[in-house]
Amino acid sequence: MKQLDKINNIDDIKKLNLSEKKELSTEIREFLVDKVSKNGGHLASNLGIVELTISLCDVFDFNQDKIIFDVGHQSYVYKILTGRKNMFDTLRKYKGLRGFPYKKESPYDFFETGHSSTSISAAIGMARARDLQKKDYNIIALIGDGAISNGMSLEAINDLGFNKTKLIIILNDNGMSISSNVGGLSSYLSRLSLNEKYIKLKNKIKYCLDDTKLGNISINLLTRIKDGIRKTLVPSKYFEDMGLTYIGPIDGHNIKEIEKVLRRAKKIDGPVIIHTVTKKGKGYKFAEETPEKYHGVSPFDKEIGVLSTGKETYSSAFGKALTNIAAHNKKVIAITAAMQEGVGLEKFAKKYPERYFDVGISEEHAVTLAAGISTTNLRPVFAVYSTFLQRGFDQIVHDVCMQNSPVIFAIDRAGLVGSDGETHQGILDLSYLSIIPNMTIISPKCIAELETLLKWSIKQNFPIAIRYPRGGDYIEMKPLKDITLGKWEYITKGHKVTVIATGKMVQKACQIKSEYDLDISIINATFIKPLDIDTLKKLVKKKENILTLEDNLINGGLGHNILLALNNLNYKGKIKILGFNDKFIEQGSIEELYKQEHLDNKSIKEEIEKLLK
Amino acid sequence: MKQLDKINNIDDIKKLNLSEKKELSTEIREFLVDKVSKNGGHLASNLGIVELTISLCDVFDFNQDKIIFDVGHQSYVYKILTGRKNMFDTLRKYKGLRGFPYKKESPYDFFETGHSSTSISAAIGMARARDLQKKDYNIIALIGDGAISNGMSLEAINDLGFNKTKLIIILNDNGMSISSNVGGLSSYLSRLSLNEKYIKLKNKIKYCLDDTKLGNISINLLTRIKDGIRKTLVPSKYFEDMGLTYIGPIDGHNIKEIEKVLRRAKKIDGPVIIHTVTKKGKGYKFAEETPEKYHGVSPFDKEIGVLSTGKETYSSAFGKALTNIAAHNKKVIAITAAMQEGVGLEKFAKKYPERYFDVGISEEHAVTLAAGISTTNLRPVFAVYSTFLQRGFDQIVHDVCMQNSPVIFAIDRAGLVGSDGETHQGILDLSYLSIIPNMTIISPKCIAELETLLKWSIKQNFPIAIRYPRGGDYIEMKPLKDITLGKWEYITKGHKVTVIATGKMVQKACQIKSEYDLDISIINATFIKPLDIDTLKKLVKKKENILTLEDNLINGGLGHNILLALNNLNYKGKIKILGFNDKFIEQGSIEELYKQEHLDNKSIKEEIEKLLK
Repeated sequence: MKQLDKINNIDDIKKLNLSEKKELSTEIREFLVDKVSKNGGHLASNLGIVELTISLCDVFDFNQDKIIFDVGHQSYVYKILTGRKNMFDTLRKYKGLRGFPYKKESPYDFFETGHSSTSISAAIGMARARDLQKKDYNIIALIGDGAISNGMSLEAINDLGFNKTKLIIILNDNGMSISSNVGGLSSYLSRLSLNEKYIKLKNKIKYCLDDTKLGNISINLLTRIKDGIRKTLVPSKYFEDMGLTYIGPIDGHNIKEIEKVLRRAKKIDGPVIIHTVTKKGKGYKFAEETPEKYHGVSPFDKEIGVLSTGKETYSSAFGKALTNIAAHNKKVIAITAAMQEGVGLEKFAKKYPERYFDVGISEEHAVTLAAGISTTNLRPVFAVYSTFLQRGFDQIVHDVCMQNSPVIFAIDRAGLVGSDGETHQGILDLSYLSIIPNMTIISPKCIAELETLLKWSIKQNFPIAIRYPRGGDYIEMKPLKDITLGKWEYITKGHKVTVIATGKMVQKACQIKSEYDLDISIINATFIKPLDIDTLKKLVKKKENILTLEDNLINGGLGHNILLALNNLNYKGKIKILGFNDKFIEQGSIEELYKQEHLDNKSIKEEIEKLLK
Repeated sequence: MKQLDKINNIDDIKKLNLSEKKELSTEIREFLVDKVSKNGGHLASNLGIVELTISLCDVFDFNQDKIIFDVGHQSYVYKILTGRKNMFDTLRKYKGLRGFPYKKESPYDFFETGHSSTSISAAIGMARARDLQKKDYNIIALIGDGAISNGMSLEAINDLGFNKTKLIIILNDNGMSISSNVGGLSSYLSRLSLNEKYIKLKNKIKYCLDDTKLGNISINLLTRIKDGIRKTLVPSKYFEDMGLTYIGPIDGHNIKEIEKVLRRAKKIDGPVIIHTVTKKGKGYKFAEETPEKYHGVSPFDKEIGVLSTGKETYSSAFGKALTNIAAHNKKVIAITAAMQEGVGLEKFAKKYPERYFDVGISEEHAVTLAAGISTTNLRPVFAVYSTFLQRGFDQIVHDVCMQNSPVIFAIDRAGLVGSDGETHQGILDLSYLSIIPNMTIISPKCIAELETLLKWSIKQNFPIAIRYPRGGDYIEMKPLKDITLGKWEYITKGHKVTVIATGKMVQKACQIKSEYDLDISIINATFIKPLDIDTLKKLVKKKENILTLEDNLINGGLGHNILLALNNLNYKGKIKILGFNDKFIEQGSIEELYKQEHLDNKSIKEEIEKLLK
């Protein structure tokens, strides 16, 4: 019988002995590679955390104790151990197993995550509530080395060290966040290898070298000691300075060692940080070699590994365009917050390293860094996912728009993103950006238009957000070669209804027109802000009904703002605003979600027909 | 001739010798007490920074070098030294001298501030731009001990320590941010008194003891050494761990010493942090004794000091109400981000210290801490200024609303705040909160109604924002004794136009109705979200024109959302939306600003009359 077959609920792990747990680790890795290669999902981070999760579920009792997985994409092993093994065929599918912790899915998911660096704050909150209620259970925040250097984590550690709340932080250090790790804290962490406690641990790790399964990671650790020595000879005490009890670094693949440390940490009355070192992608050759490629993956052949599709996406087109522009324009600067590959900046980074800044998972800092750069005649472009830019909202208001500074936001993954679900859908950006004075918001109707918009933006002298979706185009379109501030483009002129669409939704409108042979006008609202008031005035005169179409919340989005402008213009016709209703949107394929939200082609066609009457 | 008379532009300070600079310090303090007592403004922080600013302007050349004042309320001395001495009679007045750095006011203001902890990020941006352009000048970020422990500063330090950008940070440590300082970093800073370099400096400070003017601060420093010894004997190296060169602590009132250190720092090729210790309120007895009372003040008699007006404000009423509720409801928790006095929580903090959490200037952490607490059956209330809550936008979306957690946001200083200007106006909150799914937004029409809303909120099971303005009421109103989710209140029924107003704007509507004897209905939109659709349906039937009134941006605000609802209900009447147009609003008295924005009673009356036709 396989060990994995014995694991059906949270208590089953406690029945296994050490060698069975080691067998289970191997089986879980095979299971993960198998399921994720079929469905897509987060692979490398989960492969890295197998032994650590097994140890946590063994030492703690999550019928009482609570754990928060920071970011949450590394919770698959935990899902397996807490009775959700059989749901993995539906992983990240519509109505299926979530790719992140989800309270409605399991009583063992205590706090939902998706964005980085929320776990310590939430855990402190839970711990203080526990203490006020005079209860006695353990609370654990599990966080990666990339996430711990975000400002929010550091604020939480600052509070924790001062107030000494009893809490266990597990810093799972795999030497990289999503792409590579940056920052003083990160280089500090690698120097920590020289910590006294660590030196004592070294002998134990040497012992591990005999265990062939653990050989790799241990050699890795030893290499880091040497690296560390080259940098400095004095071990530092960052976390202890902050008032936390520090234990580590320990080998995060050694179950016996981890369990010993976890049991010790349980007894400490105050905040403890356990620094574990693990290997991202461990046990699956391809993922070990290029873990960043196996962070989040689409389905692939597990024998061959992930192949680059070479298909053009908005992200790759953005990277290409910006690199092209930078060749002729020395003023162009690129900034990312730990998302080099995601936003398509690999080539830029290689070609123009001096004009490329990866600040780590620090969106707040990224925005104001850009604001600082823009005080000179340089043009910073901050490339960021729509949902993560929310972290920099105040900085966009206060440091960029209030000073009307020429910072360009290249907003990737705007609109639905699909299987990452609620926490990652980019459906708020048009709303939260539209309300900010001095902000200009544009969107290309097709990939080929992105470069036109970028080139134009770099020539302007005010803040600009360029918004584009995940993936590629539905259909080919003729891109604009030049744009004028606040001017929309007529794609086609008809006689019945005018559809004003933005971004890739223009393609949807064109599809619908030809599919159902509708006599409608289609406008590409290149500018979401400012609106094209001249065109709106003409529409008011024509008294033609209007339908607006966007992949953003209706509240505060393009259509809502057009409605306001039309009200000021005394428009008497009908206007139907299509977008997302006032709720968060779950995981699923983009097509399934459009259908659910009545934004599939057929539903949109029906709305147009209502306006024809 | 007074020394101050010699100071007319940036270069004049360089002509004074040390003893003249000391005289100038005294004169500047008298000048500040005089001007601020007449006009109101930030006093204690500026009194603390006199010698430091003189030294900076002497050692650096701000015709080339650049400085950023974090938060910026401590820039008065700099304004005096950079040619703006004669504008102080208009300080913080409409069209007058700004209370914060302002680029259009002076070529010596390089970056605008107002919110905390932006300076290091912006300075890094400027410094990298300088280096890319192969230029050679100094960039300085001046930041307080409260602001440096905010996540954004820590992200910036993390980046800086790693990339070693040449930059000078001056950490001006007065042992308190706006109220008192909290956090592991803060207690670490006080332990720094034991730093080796400091020990060497001790003798120099002893010498200062003979200088009567500097005696106080030096004794203060010596006391801190003793305190420090009690805590720990080992000096720590936080900033050096992070990769910065650390110099300090030094006496921030000793011009000779500071100038020596500044000259040394200039020559260091990389990031330097100079830790100065100053006394907030220095030189003005009342401000030294209770510096938090002299942080931001209204005009007062300088011989007597600031007297408590005892006038009831929304803030004091909030604190009183929450303390009352907490007496009977053990579930109530209060959270503030370094704004105990500002939000009125002094009594709560004293009476229920175990249920009170001041997290320092850490709004992101505060929101998610509250989310963590709310996972139990406790009810956290985060009291925060509207403009500062922007820092927690992503956390409100991701950690509170997505999980539909019962966190209560008590949003003070919503609407215009007056003389603090652009950076502090609370005119975006209705817009950025309305777009978030699951959020409920309410506002009391008068102070007496705030307790009703709070009591109701604590009984609910979902996120709620309660929004209220700075100051007190215009007129007395009859408060609601109970409310129902999504129900508005008719204040008065007339026959011509229906005015839907929210918060204190209801009082304005009542004033206008009686002042001009208008036959209008007035609705108190207690709920900004969800809207009262039943009432709107009735209005649609009545075909009566509608005017909406709010002290928020029109974009995304109450009226804009009512317009959307009415469009869905096929409303055929007219609707006029009154609020702020799409721009930032400068400093001035609230009345002056309302007039400028056509929201004074007369302008509103005229808009109502247009709808009567």
